[in-house]
Formats: sequence, C-alpha cells, structure tokens
Amino acid sequence: VRCSVEPMLRASPETLQARFLRVRAQTEALCAELSAEDAGAQSMPDASPAKWHLAHTSWFFETFVLSNTPGFRAFRPEYGYLFNSYYEALGARVARAARGLITRPPLSEIYEYRRVVTARVAELLETAHGPTDALRALVELGVNHEEQHQELILTDVKHLLGQSPLAPVYCSSLPAEPAAAVSMALPAHVFREFAAGLVPIGHDGPGFSFDNEGPAHLHYLLAYALGTRLVTNGEYLEFMRDGGYERAELWLSDGFRWKKQNDVSRPLYWDASTGELVQVFTLGGPRPLALDEPVCHVSYYEADAYARWSGARLPSEAEWEHAVRHEAVDGNLLETGRLHPRVLRALTENQSFGDVWEWTSSAYSPYPGYRTLDGALGEYNGKFMCNQMVLRGGSCVTPRAHIRASYRNFFPPETRWQFAGIRLARYS
Amino acid sequence: VRCSVEPMLRASPETLQARFLRVRAQTEALCAELSAEDAGAQSMPDASPAKWHLAHTSWFFETFVLSNTPGFRAFRPEYGYLFNSYYEALGARVARAARGLITRPPLSEIYEYRRVVTARVAELLETAHGPTDALRALVELGVNHEEQHQELILTDVKHLLGQSPLAPVYCSSLPAEPAAAVSMALPAHVFREFAAGLVPIGHDGPGFSFDNEGPAHLHYLLAYALGTRLVTNGEYLEFMRDGGYERAELWLSDGFRWKKQNDVSRPLYWDASTGELVQVFTLGGPRPLALDEPVCHVSYYEADAYARWSGARLPSEAEWEHAVRHEAVDGNLLETGRLHPRVLRALTENQSFGDVWEWTSSAYSPYPGYRTLDGALGEYNGKFMCNQMVLRGGSCVTPRAHIRASYRNFFPPETRWQFAGIRLARYS
Amino acid sequence: VRCSVEPMLRASPETLQARFLRVRAQTEALCAELSAEDAGAQSMPDASPAKWHLAHTSWFFETFVLSNTPGFRAFRPEYGYLFNSYYEALGARVARAARGLITRPPLSEIYEYRRVVTARVAELLETAHGPTDALRALVELGVNHEEQHQELILTDVKHLLGQSPLAPVYCSSLPAEPAAAVSMALPAHVFREFAAGLVPIGHDGPGFSFDNEGPAHLHYLLAYALGTRLVTNGEYLEFMRDGGYERAELWLSDGFRWKKQNDVSRPLYWDASTGELVQVFTLGGPRPLALDEPVCHVSYYEADAYARWSGARLPSEAEWEHAVRHEAVDGNLLETGRLHPRVLRALTENQSFGDVWEWTSSAYSPYPGYRTLDGALGEYNGKFMCNQMVLRGGSCVTPRAHIRASYRNFFPPETRWQFAGIRLARYS
Amino acid sequence: VRCSVEPMLRASPETLQARFLRVRAQTEALCAELSAEDAGAQSMPDASPAKWHLAHTSWFFETFVLSNTPGFRAFRPEYGYLFNSYYEALGARVARAARGLITRPPLSEIYEYRRVVTARVAELLETAHGPTDALRALVELGVNHEEQHQELILTDVKHLLGQSPLAPVYCSSLPAEPAAAVSMALPAHVFREFAAGLVPIGHDGPGFSFDNEGPAHLHYLLAYALGTRLVTNGEYLEFMRDGGYERAELWLSDGFRWKKQNDVSRPLYWDASTGELVQVFTLGGPRPLALDEPVCHVSYYEADAYARWSGARLPSEAEWEHAVRHEAVDGNLLETGRLHPRVLRALTENQSFGDVWEWTSSAYSPYPGYRTLDGALGEYNGKFMCNQMVLRGGSCVTPRAHIRASYRNFFPPETRWQFAGIRLARYS
Repeated sequence: VRCSVEPMLRASPETLQARFLRVRAQTEALCAELSAEDAGAQSMPDASPAKWHLAHTSWFFETFVLSNTPGFRAFRPEYGYLFNSYYEALGARVARAARGLITRPPLSEIYEYRRVVTARVAELLETAHGPTDALRALVELGVNHEEQHQELILTDVKHLLGQSPLAPVYCSSLPAEPAAAVSMALPAHVFREFAAGLVPIGHDGPGFSFDNEGPAHLHYLLAYALGTRLVTNGEYLEFMRDGGYERAELWLSDGFRWKKQNDVSRPLYWDASTGELVQVFTLGGPRPLALDEPVCHVSYYEADAYARWSGARLPSEAEWEHAVRHEAVDGNLLETGRLHPRVLRALTENQSFGDVWEWTSSAYSPYPGYRTLDGALGEYNGKFMCNQMVLRGGSCVTPRAHIRASYRNFFPPETRWQFAGIRLARYS
Repeated sequence: VRCSVEPMLRASPETLQARFLRVRAQTEALCAELSAEDAGAQSMPDASPAKWHLAHTSWFFETFVLSNTPGFRAFRPEYGYLFNSYYEALGARVARAARGLITRPPLSEIYEYRRVVTARVAELLETAHGPTDALRALVELGVNHEEQHQELILTDVKHLLGQSPLAPVYCSSLPAEPAAAVSMALPAHVFREFAAGLVPIGHDGPGFSFDNEGPAHLHYLLAYALGTRLVTNGEYLEFMRDGGYERAELWLSDGFRWKKQNDVSRPLYWDASTGELVQVFTLGGPRPLALDEPVCHVSYYEADAYARWSGARLPSEAEWEHAVRHEAVDGNLLETGRLHPRVLRALTENQSFGDVWEWTSSAYSPYPGYRTLDGALGEYNGKFMCNQMVLRGGSCVTPRAHIRASYRNFFPPETRWQFAGIRLARYS
Repeated sequence: VRCSVEPMLRASPETLQARFLRVRAQTEALCAELSAEDAGAQSMPDASPAKWHLAHTSWFFETFVLSNTPGFRAFRPEYGYLFNSYYEALGARVARAARGLITRPPLSEIYEYRRVVTARVAELLETAHGPTDALRALVELGVNHEEQHQELILTDVKHLLGQSPLAPVYCSSLPAEPAAAVSMALPAHVFREFAAGLVPIGHDGPGFSFDNEGPAHLHYLLAYALGTRLVTNGEYLEFMRDGGYERAELWLSDGFRWKKQNDVSRPLYWDASTGELVQVFTLGGPRPLALDEPVCHVSYYEADAYARWSGARLPSEAEWEHAVRHEAVDGNLLETGRLHPRVLRALTENQSFGDVWEWTSSAYSPYPGYRTLDGALGEYNGKFMCNQMVLRGGSCVTPRAHIRASYRNFFPPETRWQFAGIRLARYS
Repeated sequence: VRCSVEPMLRASPETLQARFLRVRAQTEALCAELSAEDAGAQSMPDASPAKWHLAHTSWFFETFVLSNTPGFRAFRPEYGYLFNSYYEALGARVARAARGLITRPPLSEIYEYRRVVTARVAELLETAHGPTDALRALVELGVNHEEQHQELILTDVKHLLGQSPLAPVYCSSLPAEPAAAVSMALPAHVFREFAAGLVPIGHDGPGFSFDNEGPAHLHYLLAYALGTRLVTNGEYLEFMRDGGYERAELWLSDGFRWKKQNDVSRPLYWDASTGELVQVFTLGGPRPLALDEPVCHVSYYEADAYARWSGARLPSEAEWEHAVRHEAVDGNLLETGRLHPRVLRALTENQSFGDVWEWTSSAYSPYPGYRTLDGALGEYNGKFMCNQMVLRGGSCVTPRAHIRASYRNFFPPETRWQFAGIRLARYS
C-alpha cells in the first residue's frame, strides 16, 4: 500500500483559494488508498465512514457557502438528509449509527460531488476584487472544518482496520522510528515553573479561530509547573505493573466504573495476547511497543489516574495555554507523514504541538462572555459544552495549519480512539 | 438496474456436478448488480452482508468437502475466522454483528475464492466411477446450504436497501403484477377439511433432506380445516382498521410487549407516511400496496394475532405437512423472478409453495427419535431447537429445487425481515 | 425463627368451603414469620413481594367471585390497579418491576383485606342448596390459583433472602436430612421402558384442572425409557468437573450464549467461594451440598446440557405424563415441611411428584383443540403459550392437593429460581 | 399523618455535643412517620431507602470516629458491607441498586444501632478538657454528613411516594401557602449588576466547610448581572407554551437527546393528565400548581434551555458566590417545615438560600490547589469531580446550619429528583 499522506505543497503566503484547493486535495489524498469497501464501513457509532466524511465536508460548503449564491441548485437534494451531521436547524438526518448503511450513492458519486463543489467554491473565490469578508469567513470556517475531518478520517479508519484479525495496513511506507536516544536516559520528569498571576487566555488578534476559543479574557493562575515532555509508554507500563488499573484510590469514581464495565486494562490498540511483548496496532500495521514513544489512545480517566499515581496531576487548559502561548507551532503533525507519536529527539523539544492531544483537567465550558453564532452555525461548538473534557495541542494526525495555542478540542472522558495522551502538571 | 435473477437452465435429470455448478452460478448472478459497497454493509445483527454470504458458502465447501482431500491447502487460513458462521467445533470467529466490518479482503478476492473452490469441488465430482456416497452427501448438503443463503442474500439486501431514504432498487425490471381477477371476489376464506387420524410426518424416501426433517414418524391429528389460500394485504388492513394492533386480547403476552416496545403498527416495509395510500418497499423499489397480494413480512406474533382476530388459528406444522404431502412443488418461487408475493391467479391455486413462508403454531423442536449428526455438522440444525417457530412452504425468494413438503424453516417469533405470511386453520 | 409451614389439617372428603378456608389460612401461615419489610421487598422483576401475593390472591377472589354478587363494594377501588397481575381486560396496573414500591397500603391493611374477602367468599359458599356450579368453578379456580402463589411466595422469599450476605433464614426448624442410604450405591441410572403406541394425554374426568391440561387427546409415542429417579447433585458435579459448562457441543445455541452473558457456572444458590466445600443456600439457611439430593435450581439450558452430556435426553411432556398416569400423588411436597429436595429413601421410590419440577423437552403449546376461556379468565394460561418450556411433577414447595399427572407448569428456559431439576429419558 | 419536621431547639452558642445530639435526633424525627415498609423501599438506583440513610449515617460515625477508640467493638461487623456507601478503601459493599433488598436487619435494629452509636459518640465528646481537635473535626464532618442525608431522606421519600397512584402523604400538616402578593406583579425579571474584577472565591476563615470548598483563591469575573429572584412556575409555563421542549436550538445536544429518550416535557412531579389544571406532587400530597412558586425539580438541561429561551443564561458558581458572599443565611430552609418552595414574600427578598438549589453553569471541578484528604475520607468529594454540575444555595429541605455561601452541591446534569430550580444571569 502506497502511503497516501503526502504533504501538499504550500505557497507562502497562500491565498484563500489556494488554501481551499490544497485542503480539499489533501482530504482526497488521505482516502486515495481506501477501497469503496474500506471507505463505506462504520466500526462504531462514534466513528464515521471515510465516504461520509468526504461527502459531509462537501455538504458543509454547499450548505453554508453555495446555497445562498444566485442560481444555486443542490447537487442532489437528498444529500441534506444523508450528510448533515448534527445541525438540528437544517432538518432531519440519517441516524449517526447508520452512516455505514449509505451504500448508495456509490463512492464514485461522492467524488463527483466533491469535484462539483470544489469547482464552484473556487470559482466564487476567483473574483476581481477578492471575495467579500462574509464569504472569506465562511470559506475559512469550511476549510478548518474540513481539516478537523481529515483528522477524523484517520482516527476512524484506524479504528475500523483495528477491528480486523488480519492486521491490515492503511499505509505501508510509514517512516521507521529513530532509535530512542534521549528520553529514557532523562532523570525522570522535568517540570518547568510558572509564576502565579492574572494571565490572558483565548484567541486574540488576526487569523482564524473557532468561536469557542474566545472571547479573550483574563484568568488567575496559581504558581504551577508543567512537564517538559509527554508521558511515555515505558512510564505508563510502570503504572500498569504497579497495579494502576486495579487501585481504586487512583481513579475518579466514574472512571473506575467505566474501567470495570468495559474491562479496560491497557491503552487501546495494545495487544497483550502475546504476553510481555506487547504489539501495538498503528496505521502502518502492528509494531512492537516502543517504550520511549509518548503513550497514546488513553481516555481522560486513564490519564487522570496515571497522573495521580505519579504524584502529579493533569494541567488545566489555562495552565497549558499560558505555557505555550509564545511557542511556534511545530512538531510531529500530519505533515510529517508518520501518523504515529514520535520519540523525543532532543532534550530541548517539548512536544507541545503534535504527537498526541493532551488531556487537560478542564471541563469543556463556554469562556466568560461567550455567545454562540446566529443560525445553524451556532450549533457548531456551543451545544456540546457539557460532559466533555478539553484537549490541547493537536496530534500526529492534525494538519499543521489547523492547530494553535488557543485551540480547544473536546471529547467525553471515556474517549480512546483519538490520538490522546498525557502531560503532567503540579502546583509549585 | 438490470434484473439479476435469471433462472439458470436446468438439465433433467441433472447430475450432481451440474446441479453444483448451477447453484454456485446462481448465487453469483444474484449478486451481479451489487457494488462492493452494497455487498459489504450489514444493516442489523441478524442480517449479513452479501459478500459474507458469498464467502461463507465457499468456506462451507472448503471446510466440509475439500479439507479432507489429499494435498489440500486453505485458500487463506484466516478465512476460517472470518467466514465461519456458528460452528463452535471449528473455533473462534468474527462476532455476528461485526460482519459488516470485514472490508479486507476485498469483494474481488472473495470472487476469486469462489472460483478456486468451485473448480476444485467440480473436479472432485469429475471421476470415472462417480463420487463416493460420502462425498455426494457432503456436496448435496453444501448445495442445499448455499440455496438457503441465496434466500438470505435477498432478504438481507432488501433490509439494507430498505433503510435508505432514497428508495434504491435491487432490480428495476421485476415483472408487473397482473390485475387482481380473483381473490377479492371470493366469498371470504374457503377451508379444506381433513379427517382426524394417525398420519405420517417427516421426510422419508430418496432425495436430499435436512436432518431436522426426520425421522419420519406417526402423529395423531384431530379433524381440521386449512385455508385454501394465503391471507391478503386487504384482509390484513381490515384487522388493522379494526384496532387489531391495540387489542391486547388478540395477542400473546410476549407479542403484545414486543409490539409496544418496538412501536409496531403495520407489516415491515409498509410506509404509511403518505396516509391512506400505503407504499410498500420491494426489491423492485416502492410500490403502492396491492390489496390482493398475500400479506408479507409479518412476525409470528402478528400472524397469530391476525388469526385470532379472524376467528381462526394458525395451523400446526403437522397439519400443514399432511395437507400438502402429495402436492407438486410449484408456485411463485425464486425462478419466477418476481421476488415478491403474487396475487392468486385462479381459484384452484392454493399457494402452498412459494410466495411467503407460512408461520405455523409449532415451536421448533426435535422430531421423536431425532439425533444430531456427529462432529461440527451436528451443529447445523439441532442446537437451534429452542425459542423458535416453524415456517413452511418456501417463499418467492426460495429456489424451487430447495423446497418440499417436509421442509422445516425456523425463526424467532419476532422475525419480520423474512418473506413470511399467514395461512389460516381451524378445527372442524 | 419458628417454622411457618405447618400442614393444615384436611378433612376427607373436604367441602369446597373447608378447602377454601384451609388454603387461605395456609397462605397466611407461610407468611407468618415475614416482617413487613421482608414481605414488601422485590428482589427481581420476575419475583414479587410476599405482600403482593397476599393481596393479589385476594383481589382474584374479589374480582372473579365477589364482584358480580349483589351489593358488592370493592374493599378499596385502587387495589385493582395495584394488584392486578397481567389481565389486560381488567385495565392498567402497576408495572411488574415496581411491585416492591407499594409501601402503602401497609401489610396490616392487606391482612385486613384478606379477612374481609375470605369471610365474604366463605359466606357465599354457605348456602342451603350448596353453591351453584358456576360459583363452585370460580372458587375452585381461585383456590388453585392461590396454591400456585403459595409456591411463588416460597420461591420469591428464597430469592430475596438469598441476596443477603447475612444468610438469613426463612425457617430455622427444617427437618434434618436422613443419611444418604441409597442413591450413590446405585449402579448409575436405571431406566424403565415404555412401549410405542398411541396414548391418551391430558386431563379427563372429574376433579379440577386448568384449561391448559385439556382437551384430552391422543398422542403417538415412540418406545422410550425414563430414569427411575432424579439426577443428583453428585452426578451434576461430575458434569461440572468434566468441563460441562465450557463445552459448547453440549449446549443449545441460545443456552450457551445465555451462560456466557450471565457468567453461569453452577446451579443457582451454590456458593463456591469456599472452594470444594460448596455451600447451598436453602430456606433453612446455608448448608453443605448433599451429594445425594436431587440437583435443583437449574435452568432448562443446564438440564438439557446435562442430559446430553450423560448420553441421554430430557423426556417430552407426553412421555412423562404417560409414565406417571396411574401413580398416586405422593412425595416430598409442601406438606412435608422440608422446603428442599430430599434424598431417595428407597430404590422403589421414583420421585415423580414433589422434590423438583422436572424440565421436559416440550415447548409450552396449546393442546390440539384447545380454546381459551371467554373474558378476562381467557388470559389465565393461553396468552403465555410461546417461548416457554413445560415442567412436570411439582416440587417440595407445591401443595399436594395442587399437583397431578396432567399438570403443566411452564417457565422460560433461562429460569432458575424455581425448584426445577432433571429426569433423564432415552429412546429404547 | 402528623408532620414530622419539627425544628429542633437550638442553643446559641451550641456545643459540639449539643449540635451532634440535635442533628441525630432531627434525622430520626424526619423518619418518625415512616413505616418499616416506607423506610425499606428503594424507588430507583439513585435514591436510597430511609432505613439505609439511618444506618449509613451511623456507620459513618462508627467507622471514622469510634473505630479508633480503645476497646471498640463493631455493633455488627456485617454492617460494613451493608452500609458503606462508596468508600473503596473500606472494602466491598452492597450494590447501590440493591439497597432496597436489605430487609434484614429490621428497622428496629437500625434504631438500636443509632442509639448505641449516638451514646458512644456523645460520651467521647463529654470530656473534662473538651474533645481533641482531631476528634472535633471528625465529629463535625459526621454531623455535616448526616445533614446531607437528611436532605436525601426527604428527596428519596418524595420520589418513592411519588411513584404511587394513591398519592400518599409524607406529612399532612404542611403550612398552607400565602397568597401570592408580589411576584407576578413584578415587571418581569430584575437583575442586580456586579462589576468586573478579581474576587476571592472559596471558604476561608473559621467554621466547618467541606474540602471541595477550598482552597480559597482568586478568580477573575467579567461584569455581570444576576436575577434578584428565582424563576417561577408561571414563567416556566410560558417557556413550555412557547414550544420550549421541542425547539432544539434552545438545548444542549446531550440535553435534547436526554429529553427525547426519556420523553420529558415538564418538570418532575407535574401531573398533566388532568389537562390545563396541573397537579403537583409534594411531600404534603398533590396540590394545584402555584404559578408564583419557584419552579422546582428541573434538570440542568431544562434550566439551561429555559435560560437560553429567556435571553439570559445560568450564572457561574463564582458569580453566584461573589453575589451572596456577605448575605446572612436565611430563607425557606428545612426549619420552616414547609418542605416545598415558597412564593416571594417581599420585593426585597432574593431567595439566595433555601427554596431550591440553583443550577450553575459550572462543571464540578477541583479548585486550584485542591488536594484530597488522606485515607478513605479522601473519597468523600474528590473522586466525583467529573460529569457533574455545581448547584448552590440549599433548598427547602436543607438544614439551615448546613448551608453557606461557599457550599458546593453537585449532581449529574440529568438529575431531577433533587429540589433544584433556576436563577438567571447575564453579562452586563
């Protein structure tokens, strides 16, 4: 299987039209090696078929960008029912768990749909005076939306392939890992200190952000310290060997119940059936567990229990954001093509962006002063602000242009199929 | 969409090899118009993807016929895990509800698997002295097994397509229905009388039968009468209009609870969203409800409630078998290519075979003296003899060569996605 | 705790009034040692509080016997809602699983309800010319109905007390068991032979019977043989030690799934937490497992698997009935006050009646010619004739006057809290 | 039924021993009119029987106060298994949903248990030099713990009685409501303004508090405004009449799904079966809905949807606490004996304490710097800090001595059986 994650060439500065076309092409590149069968199956209600992602991201542009343009005609009116994700304001839709049953239209028609939508949006952006601000805003939202689904395509395909006893491979040419030169030689964890004080939080300034990243506001922080790197598989194994999954005092009450009910005793994708030599399923197929890689595919409950076991805690999202506010966005993101967390390459690397999303101790709530957008787009973020935890920093399957210090990802605490891991914090 | 149900030419008498090849080809013909996506999706745990049926029927020949031949090598050893249905003696297997996640191997490889298996079995049958009795018996079983899955392919594809809001069509060239010349002019139901007595039941004589059809034995019947035709949609509508679904006194206790919990108020595939003009989903797409067609896709609970409402009852399987024992097997079976029940064409037609499976009042139990086969094949029928009801007579998607008077089909009483309907009985 | 099961003196012949009064008093005697708390709790949806049984059996007489008498006034009109079991024709009622929430009216009021109903029915029976046939029939039904609930009171109280870690005792003065003098010395199982032929089945003649025991009819039996005694705990232990619960080939498909889902590996009430020395919870508290006692509290699935393991099978209900048709009703029934199965006392004892209900291989279906009664009483038996298996012979908590050769008890195959065990059969 | 909520006389200042004895007596007074049946039943897994509360609060003192004193002997060792609520460090315990099955020991023994524990703790407090600080701290915790269970006894008994079709009464002598003189004449809602700034949050200073109320810390607030009174039934009815329960745009995503799955269309305990004249079930039995009373028994989801509909929002817990920080604790608390929210008596009353717990928009998270206690008591609060929302202010069934400005109550967002209502907030 040829590796389908080739970084798209990116002009600098890039016009909105160029960015739009690049992102659209990137999505298709990610699916290039998936058969119609691979692209059609749904492995669990939380995951969606790649075909659905391909269609839904086009429906998003069609609905929010194209439908108000003169002479608009829907590609196929039924698509609103099939490919609306969760917008109540836009009417009824296929039940989430039934997305894998949409065998008609065929995948080929979805690619045609993409072509038509891409061409029409690109044409809109091709004007003498440049697009209006309103159009720019909607296309930028659509592009960022599509980048979110690029990550979901990879997490969902991984989950699907991970069900199979045949250990199928999404991409056989993933780069080999470098020898672990650094991390295990470290004198355990190093923490960087931050002083107490009132700090700015939230997105401010130019550049795209989602509504949930604002308004920018002040937040008072106690003095704290943050781990300079991510927790590794080797460290997590120590927790496991110390009975971490059986010691109730380390767990939240909901977490311990979840663990028992679902018989969880190791991160997702770890196959312990071969005894001590743990195999890990990756998008490049099964590999032996690399002790120095960041631990990945753990739930909030596991991250929280690990932190408590280690004598530390998880950072709040404000602590995290304050610490990385002035860091450049760089790291093991989608464009490295690894599609897997990477061992630390230097003691100066702090893995803030990429590798794994970092669970924070913060429940996903509106920022002070937050107001949802009007209309259907008001449903984009605001209606999910309950029963979820915030994750920060992006992962090895997040596009680089998509992530920033103020970015708030969110999932329910039991979520494991996302590339999520652990950074420690403590009070000074 | 071209109609893929073309009756295969059938020599008479047909050698076992010819029958084997014809049945294998027929299975593929039924799937000819299904895309890889259509063939891969699973609409509910009880239904399987067409692709799985294509593979499983080949695995059956490979496992029970080929694996004991000299020089045997499995096509791919993992297929045992993927395509074993329920044979505990043959090891672990994919969970039933996860058959839709087998996107690898691709459908094309399954067709290759079929070609290899078909060729090798055909070769085995091609001997100077003819196959041994043991080989004949296993191939006959495999052929009958494959015919069962032909019916399941059609019921399962219908269920999958029936989920879609787009009303997709399995086959667009189904024959149009003749005008209803007869049934509604009938003076209601006519019953044929049978005298009390000790009668032979069960398969006896030459020709293939499943183990659950024997041993042949004696059974004492009271005098009874059997409806000369099937209950129609129009008659069933009267039951509905008389509040049949709301009148607890007409229902079994389990049935009334099932009805409430599942909010059932009409046969499966009836779409009443358009008011009085009921649309029915068929393998040829939606059609207006034809009042004179046999009612179809009802559960045992509904059949039983209808019978009670009409002042009659369902026949026992012995009553049914005694009545049709000497009838020729003819009717609206798979080979008519209609794939849907048919209106009565003459008063002399009694619809014993084909159209719809007829729910009987008999729980599925072993016949007196029944013993299961040794080995894995002992699991074929015997281990299901609990919590199921017997159906008789075959349906419009049953191959003609497959059905006979002694044939016992069985499903749990809440089953609706099979082509099942109603014949009435009463005591004389 | 004083033993509350004292056999009531029984005149012979006994008038209907005397029988009525004796049965009513017996019910109360069974509950004499239960506190209001014990009598009010419901340990699972299938079981009911003793208080509910006390009330429901009175409601039955009030509804079916008293409500049509001149000047009738309900004791309290709301009782129809609270204490109707399942009669749809009589209106809405408390959900089955919520019977334990009826803390008002208090238990004392329920006893008052009983006194009022008992007095009024007794008065009706006290007429110069004797009760009418219609009245007799209804009172006889009510008396038999109440006897069924006597058994349920004991099975349901056992289930409730069995939940407690304190091993509470229903009755501390149960008779000690005699030393096991006989059974284990037997040369395994002995089978009694019966010839093939057309035999009469079902209740015929005078004396009360339930509608499901008729009509009497003919049934053809193959030659068969029936175990002369029940299967013992010691024999069942051998099945367990031979891996019986893990060997799929011994089980029905539904049964093996049930076993896995419910993690079943021994009969209900066996406590194996102490290792080899199994403790068994009884109505007299925990006791060491007695190897020679009949095994009890097994499901149909377990009984069927055991029979298959032993090379035999379960009898059909017709085989069972034919064998005991002319036996006197005697054995370890409620009146012995043991409330637990008893070891075989002599080789000539065949344990047909009492000790444990015997699972048969027969699904619970209507007999040929069966018609339900008119009105609400038609719901008594007929509407349950689906998804249940027939048990025969009564148990150690069945009143002697209640059981007979034609008596058909029925429960779903997974039922374990009834006193149900195993008798073997085979074809000759 | 005599009203069992008589305010206990309270000396001022009150010694710890006096407070202890008063609280213990108050708990028993609340249960004085409950029969053993009423006290034993459990209406849902989230609620516990009053008997269990009576025992558990004693077990708490026995375990945390008495068990370390010289010569300690447990009242009954099994009680640890029966009456431990959720302390994993203290071993196995009865499943939460099975608390209603503890019919033995009887209620009378639980009262004896209380007497023994009360006497022994009182004796410990009766020392020449006064109790040690450590003992004081544990007894104070036990007293506050018992006050929490007083509230739960009333919410749980209300839920149990509310299941009954007989509309039973916990207390028939509840005070009649005054005529509604004020609220509906108000010009809608009035909001009090608060300036932005860094404010102190959390408990600080002497007096008991739970660990989750600290550490005291600084928090930055935007300028905001808080409703001066609670939302009333009449106002909530307007929301309902405006289609509030059907308009997805008003709801959180989880909330709308919860509403549909549970078929919620009005507050708990509102009986709309009589049409417009809504009956409300109270601890004094059913009453007509009083439009001017604060709305009660709504979930967080309903509170949030109402707030959005009204153009406002729910306050954060910091906003709430800052606003009431200097208010005296007064209001319709347990000691008024009303056991039901009360209409506003004067425009100057702001209902901050008592009447109903007020849902805040804050997820229940640890305060900055929070550390759990060592040992089993560390499980008291910390392990629940996930998936719950904070409520503030106490209710009509909260003891006055128990509530304060910094008090944090918490429940999952779907909770309805607590006395919880709505106060509005908005940004200035």
